[in-house]
Amino acid sequence: MAIVLGPNQFGKAEIRLVHVDRTGPVHHLTDLNVSTALRGDFAAAHLTGDNSHVLTTDAQKNTVYAFARKHGIGQIEDFAIRLGRHFVDSFPWIDGARIEIEKYHWNRILVGGTPHDHAFSRAGGERRTTVVTVDGDAAFVVSGLAGLVLLKSTGSEFWGFPRDDYTTLAETTDRILATEVTARWRYIGAGHDFGPLFDGVRETLVSTFADVHSLALQQTLYRMGEAALTAFPQVAEVRMSMPNKHHFLVDLEPFGLDNPDVVYQAPDRPYGRIEATVLRDDAPDPGPSWQAVPGFC
Amino acid sequence: MAIVLGPNQFGKAEIRLVHVDRTGPVHHLTDLNVSTALRGDFAAAHLTGDNSHVLTTDAQKNTVYAFARKHGIGQIEDFAIRLGRHFVDSFPWIDGARIEIEKYHWNRILVGGTPHDHAFSRAGGERRTTVVTVDGDAAFVVSGLAGLVLLKSTGSEFWGFPRDDYTTLAETTDRILATEVTARWRYIGAGHDFGPLFDGVRETLVSTFADVHSLALQQTLYRMGEAALTAFPQVAEVRMSMPNKHHFLVDLEPFGLDNPDVVYQAPDRPYGRIEATVLRDDAPDPGPSWQAVPGFC
Amino acid sequence: MAIVLGPNQFGKAEIRLVHVDRTGPVHHLTDLNVSTALRGDFAAAHLTGDNSHVLTTDAQKNTVYAFARKHGIGQIEDFAIRLGRHFVDSFPWIDGARIEIEKYHWNRILVGGTPHDHAFSRAGGERRTTVVTVDGDAAFVVSGLAGLVLLKSTGSEFWGFPRDDYTTLAETTDRILATEVTARWRYIGAGHDFGPLFDGVRETLVSTFADVHSLALQQTLYRMGEAALTAFPQVAEVRMSMPNKHHFLVDLEPFGLDNPDVVYQAPDRPYGRIEATVLRDDAPDPGPSWQAVPGFC
Amino acid sequence: MAIVLGPNQFGKAEIRLVHVDRTGPVHHLTDLNVSTALRGDFAAAHLTGDNSHVLTTDAQKNTVYAFARKHGIGQIEDFAIRLGRHFVDSFPWIDGARIEIEKYHWNRILVGGTPHDHAFSRAGGERRTTVVTVDGDAAFVVSGLAGLVLLKSTGSEFWGFPRDDYTTLAETTDRILATEVTARWRYIGAGHDFGPLFDGVRETLVSTFADVHSLALQQTLYRMGEAALTAFPQVAEVRMSMPNKHHFLVDLEPFGLDNPDVVYQAPDRPYGRIEATVLRDDAPDPGPSWQAVPGFC
Repeated sequence: MAIVLGPNQFGKAEIRLVHVDRTGPVHHLTDLNVSTALRGDFAAAHLTGDNSHVLTTDAQKNTVYAFARKHGIGQIEDFAIRLGRHFVDSFPWIDGARIEIEKYHWNRILVGGTPHDHAFSRAGGERRTTVVTVDGDAAFVVSGLAGLVLLKSTGSEFWGFPRDDYTTLAETTDRILATEVTARWRYIGAGHDFGPLFDGVRETLVSTFADVHSLALQQTLYRMGEAALTAFPQVAEVRMSMPNKHHFLVDLEPFGLDNPDVVYQAPDRPYGRIEATVLRDDAPDPGPSWQAVPGFC
Repeated sequence: MAIVLGPNQFGKAEIRLVHVDRTGPVHHLTDLNVSTALRGDFAAAHLTGDNSHVLTTDAQKNTVYAFARKHGIGQIEDFAIRLGRHFVDSFPWIDGARIEIEKYHWNRILVGGTPHDHAFSRAGGERRTTVVTVDGDAAFVVSGLAGLVLLKSTGSEFWGFPRDDYTTLAETTDRILATEVTARWRYIGAGHDFGPLFDGVRETLVSTFADVHSLALQQTLYRMGEAALTAFPQVAEVRMSMPNKHHFLVDLEPFGLDNPDVVYQAPDRPYGRIEATVLRDDAPDPGPSWQAVPGFC
Repeated sequence: MAIVLGPNQFGKAEIRLVHVDRTGPVHHLTDLNVSTALRGDFAAAHLTGDNSHVLTTDAQKNTVYAFARKHGIGQIEDFAIRLGRHFVDSFPWIDGARIEIEKYHWNRILVGGTPHDHAFSRAGGERRTTVVTVDGDAAFVVSGLAGLVLLKSTGSEFWGFPRDDYTTLAETTDRILATEVTARWRYIGAGHDFGPLFDGVRETLVSTFADVHSLALQQTLYRMGEAALTAFPQVAEVRMSMPNKHHFLVDLEPFGLDNPDVVYQAPDRPYGRIEATVLRDDAPDPGPSWQAVPGFC
Repeated sequence: MAIVLGPNQFGKAEIRLVHVDRTGPVHHLTDLNVSTALRGDFAAAHLTGDNSHVLTTDAQKNTVYAFARKHGIGQIEDFAIRLGRHFVDSFPWIDGARIEIEKYHWNRILVGGTPHDHAFSRAGGERRTTVVTVDGDAAFVVSGLAGLVLLKSTGSEFWGFPRDDYTTLAETTDRILATEVTARWRYIGAGHDFGPLFDGVRETLVSTFADVHSLALQQTLYRMGEAALTAFPQVAEVRMSMPNKHHFLVDLEPFGLDNPDVVYQAPDRPYGRIEATVLRDDAPDPGPSWQAVPGFC
């Protein structure tokens, strides 16, 4: 028996980078949170504190900023691929790189109905995301979104579930369905026009949520993933976490009032945890695509 | 010398209330965070644990939910006035009530360009707020917004400041100006059409931020308040907290690159704290309007 | 009628400063979050963008770091007074300064029972705080603590409250009492031995919470303040916010189980809001002590 | 090609449960955050909204509360095993259950030096954790801790790293080393005396952090894991995430001051990400132990 080093990675997390494209009078803003991680032969650093293979996390951060100036950002997937490729190609002992990016959305401020050239307001909590894993010569791209809060005030039922000794929940044919979607979809290949694809997948997920008459949050989730896969052959697989953010009808009977699905309380915790994968049965092997991606089954 | 009880208040904080207006096929959603506080003669509870004057915080919460059913919500200011009035009128020893409401915004989901009847997405971090203080027969209304993040990528200078032994900052004629606005405005009187007023004040603040060529964040703040007061005679006073969310140019010279206002890092802390009041010189007395309102000078 | 500038302040918020005293082999760690704000004649910056009076927030930050090196930290109250005094004395148009400090606690790591010379673990969420206001020649000191979470599993009753149409709460002679204490106490004068005083007031508050048989959270709060004022003549006034963090007994009857005060659920929101002031009837005038201190009645 | 359902799980997340053992005059408090997830044949719910296999998340929550009353809590690992076993045994279509528990620490309040019978203060941000996966007849136990913030003010070097075009970092033989440890260790078998084991592993990790003269955070991490594995043969594997929480020396030269490792600024982001696994080379197969455990390589 011996004690050995297992899988490991290191990098710089949460590099906050804002890029302004000022090549014309109409500025374009890109606001990112970039995290890097390198994989390879870093045994000596762990075993003896020999750092000769450790490309510092400070240098990784500098590279992110310098590449933003040198090459611009473009689509976050392309920026991540460029960064990952650079790290893997820079030293022989670096086999893999994982670049994770969150993009914050901004809207142009409207002044008298006209979009302003260089004034913006932050669009909210939703982020566009990507996790790119460069592994030797290959690149794996998982894109997604987070912080998308959706709600239907009707068109959701929940009944027909089994009843054990601990089941007290009443069946319902009309409830509020609310969730905060985290979705990640894996592309087949790494050479896509990622901007329109993101817009398309996002719109498909959201409109499917709205359109499906829901019998279970699981069913809604599956239909959303299925719709994205049907519409976009570039996508191999969709993984989603869609917590059930409960809205409970308040009992107003003690006050002589009915409550026909009008007044709800919305507790923070606990919440339902609903997570699933929808994929093509001939999806290519994911390789390291999902390694260290948090919070998914 | 004696030890005595000073100012005090108690209530229920952060009652999360969702109201669905389903009177027609097109549902309307109202999503609130309501906090109540009562003032009056509660000395016995403090001094001897005699609760005969303590309207329980649980009952206060029940009242919020019951009133939402009985009267609907309407504008948050009107809902707050109705609640505050009720508490002050309910027992002789309750002199005052402070009702604070945050309203979360939701957008209708567009399906094929058409707004959906009953499916919504959360609009982001910005909230509409009100703090209503009912004091005896009077009601004081302070409305506002929070979480509004704004940024200009040019049109902001900062120079001409004094230099002491600890000043190292360079002057600049072009910088990113970014802030997260918390604004609160006090109305003259309590009988307004609060919905259009909110929309109007908000739009005035935002478009003024965009339009003013800024020499100081203080100047931008003042102009925003001044514009709101000029446009809306119903408003007596505007208080704003507009932290300077710094964006620092990254030094790329070590990598042989220039950086002509293109690549920025955005640290979390520290940040500038800029707070000021803009008001009419003949504004009526605020009374208890600002008592216990957090974070304002 | 004219529109005018009202009260205003500006400074640098949340300067994270760690100081290591390495004058001997046993290191001493001081970990602070410092915020500054200046008051005075800053009208020109607001009205015309003339910054000739604006001591930059960057310089304020530099001053904090430089003073830490020059003078050390010592007690946070003394450090704040020194900083505030400096700002007010540095330029004739600066009348006042408000220095707010949070101090994080660290424990020495024990290795084989022996406290380590230079290895520490963070002690938790509780912070020691101070808000010092230098106003012309005077200094006002408000010290305190935040994030102190306390709980009694018995020794707390709640009954005898009035019942209106919205009261459904049952009376109880045994409940869990839990709260997160934010306390601020105002000193008489600014020349105290602040370290032992902090320790003494804190211990008095905590042990009084434990000892008092509670009939109302208001009564517990009052007794805590009263005990601090009785024990420490240097203290003029104590203000406390002690939210009632509800613990509700879970109804286990549907599962054939009793629940004699054993199993509780602990919701996040809503919570009770209990805030009060306890003071000497001959307390000196607070002046600007409480100006812009958040969350107190 | 067809679109199919992949891995999925559902349950109730963040059930806040407080248990009071009042069998004697000295109360014992257990404060938990419990999350459940079930795995098995839930295809019908996803594909057609048929819920006949869906044991509701509400029933899962009820089970947690009821089991706390019926069996008490004991060690969190044993409580999790009991819950997971119950779910897997309750219906033939449930193959697996994943129970995740966080435990918050409380200290007894000292009154005059004596620990109080029933008054407690929350011990801080650190939590004891477990993730138990029941898979058919087997149970896998991963225990750990989170939120443990450690700092060494000396005894840490960093030099000898490679320098590429983007490396500007200076080498150092003395720096602050600070981190927030998340550690998870996998046990061999599920029948241990988990309380003393937790205390032992935790103390080994912390004292090793203090004792090791650090040449790299990777080396410190490895030594900590190695020490735990050496001391506790019950442990097969340790995975740790130890972000490098940077402390940067402030440049005080512009103010005529030196700074011999005394005054530091502590930024929030970015931070180093250091993650690694230390394990026995004959460790038994982990099975589903690590499935859906967030944030580990």
